[in-house]
Amino acid sequence: MDQHGPASEQDFLALVDRHFPEAHAHALLPRGDDCAVLACPPTLALSTDLFLEDIHFRRSYFGPADIGWKALAVNISDIAGMGAQPLGFSLGLMIPPGPQPAPGFWDELLGGMAALAREHGLALSGGDLSRAPILGLCITIWGRPGPSGRLLTRGACRPGDTLLACGELGLVRAGLQALEAGGPAAAWPAAAAAHLRPRPQVAAGLALAAIPGVRAAMDLSDGLARDLPRLLGANQGPAPGAALTLDPGSLHPETLAWCAQTGQDPAEFACLGGEDYALLAACDPKAAPRALAAIPGARAIGTVTAAPGVTLNGRPAPARGFDHFDTP
Amino acid sequence: MDQHGPASEQDFLALVDRHFPEAHAHALLPRGDDCAVLACPPTLALSTDLFLEDIHFRRSYFGPADIGWKALAVNISDIAGMGAQPLGFSLGLMIPPGPQPAPGFWDELLGGMAALAREHGLALSGGDLSRAPILGLCITIWGRPGPSGRLLTRGACRPGDTLLACGELGLVRAGLQALEAGGPAAAWPAAAAAHLRPRPQVAAGLALAAIPGVRAAMDLSDGLARDLPRLLGANQGPAPGAALTLDPGSLHPETLAWCAQTGQDPAEFACLGGEDYALLAACDPKAAPRALAAIPGARAIGTVTAAPGVTLNGRPAPARGFDHFDTP
Repeated sequence: MDQHGPASEQDFLALVDRHFPEAHAHALLPRGDDCAVLACPPTLALSTDLFLEDIHFRRSYFGPADIGWKALAVNISDIAGMGAQPLGFSLGLMIPPGPQPAPGFWDELLGGMAALAREHGLALSGGDLSRAPILGLCITIWGRPGPSGRLLTRGACRPGDTLLACGELGLVRAGLQALEAGGPAAAWPAAAAAHLRPRPQVAAGLALAAIPGVRAAMDLSDGLARDLPRLLGANQGPAPGAALTLDPGSLHPETLAWCAQTGQDPAEFACLGGEDYALLAACDPKAAPRALAAIPGARAIGTVTAAPGVTLNGRPAPARGFDHFDTP
Repeated sequence: MDQHGPASEQDFLALVDRHFPEAHAHALLPRGDDCAVLACPPTLALSTDLFLEDIHFRRSYFGPADIGWKALAVNISDIAGMGAQPLGFSLGLMIPPGPQPAPGFWDELLGGMAALAREHGLALSGGDLSRAPILGLCITIWGRPGPSGRLLTRGACRPGDTLLACGELGLVRAGLQALEAGGPAAAWPAAAAAHLRPRPQVAAGLALAAIPGVRAAMDLSDGLARDLPRLLGANQGPAPGAALTLDPGSLHPETLAWCAQTGQDPAEFACLGGEDYALLAACDPKAAPRALAAIPGARAIGTVTAAPGVTLNGRPAPARGFDHFDTP
């Protein structure tokens, strides 16, 4: 075992056990068998996300605890996008060869992940470790419907519905651009934190699911410009359109400051911003006031239209968002 | 889009849809939402495994269909090791940059996976695609207890129990060594096939779980020498030992031929063989005849002993098996 990290699977499993308690109402068996055994609700929402070095994060400005946090956060956000309550997750961890990055690296990475898991009461159940040419994480997460019993899907909005956003739009893009430009995270504290340690909107998702007039929802991982057409396109029949009204005054001050400094239009910038992990919902306009009152930070950002296409403040919305799959 | 493969996430998802039917009794929602939504039994067995290029497979002798098949097979085997029935899986697929490997590569890879999924009636539900520096797959699989309602775990064997193996021992090691030595797969057809396209022992696992005298089981992924101590060590209190009796006559003719050609002891060779994905079970000796009669290919390979340590044909068993986590 080298001095910088665990060398064997046993060392690693001991670290996992230290950060993630085995005992959990949802886990019926201690770790170490062929499978995790879970007590399951009749309906389970499940999602898998990869989180890979130099594709989804850079070690130059992601600390190990940020990596662990964000790998789990992007998965929780998928559960939040269905209005569900996350229960547990499994972890496939890819460990690069050679000397470990720094003393305590793995301890901090698992610690960052465990901190977010504790906030949401999640069990780590099941997983695999492997040597790999890169540092990477593949998390599969699952959750149950909340007390309303309802899961929110994409394909049910109707013309006239109010579009709601829960969470910041564009703030992560400001953080990403500032960090990629080599700016110190301290100069953009909220934007950098939103990029490094996003906070999935679980409470907002559960609240949306509990309001019958909320018809459809998703989480915004690739930006409004890319994700809104997915929400609209999931409908049966011809896809409706949307008229977005993004008031720059509703954006975070750091987003506005970054746009001013870099000469970008704030509303377009927010519309293109990936990885915000805000929630987007379509809501019967009669139910919108209730949703806006019930969910801190929720706001109306436009209307579903019978005519196809998406406009932003009266002009065609920017056509592309953020796609990890794009070749660079 | 280059001519050799899908260039966009949409192209890839169309390939997935072509190979894996969306409609499945276990999947409550079509693909394309934030999460898959599953109809779940009250108890779910779940496992995650990574399958990475040059760690778990080499493209020099794994065809694309073999890669897809084996990535899923090693996961199904974990479900089989609990005596459970697999239901579905999610896929995190890492796609290397640049021109795709060959025309039809991804089509064949998904086709190989789909062929095995069909054999076991599995839904592909949930997943993620990402660019990555390597070709890799992370599969999370889940299953339910069989008709017996019982899941087999590791920590319940007792001194005097008969140890059973279901499936070949050492055959994959012969295939791996022959292929790594550059030998043509055609010279070792059974051994190469066992390495490239292992057949998880789902039926044997379900049959074991249905026999009350079967007390513990697991799948053999790292070889008997490494996995048997895990079965024994999972017991509460001091770990029992085992006396293995491996009759070379019970090994596959290709395993024997490879050992003869390379001057290796067949019983030790079989004991060290990784990735056989045979099942190992501990069984009340009174129930062993029933298990042996009920499960094609099952055979007794030894006895659990009160004294610690593992012997093989009367001598100390080789101490190490196969560990993907080992640095090379």
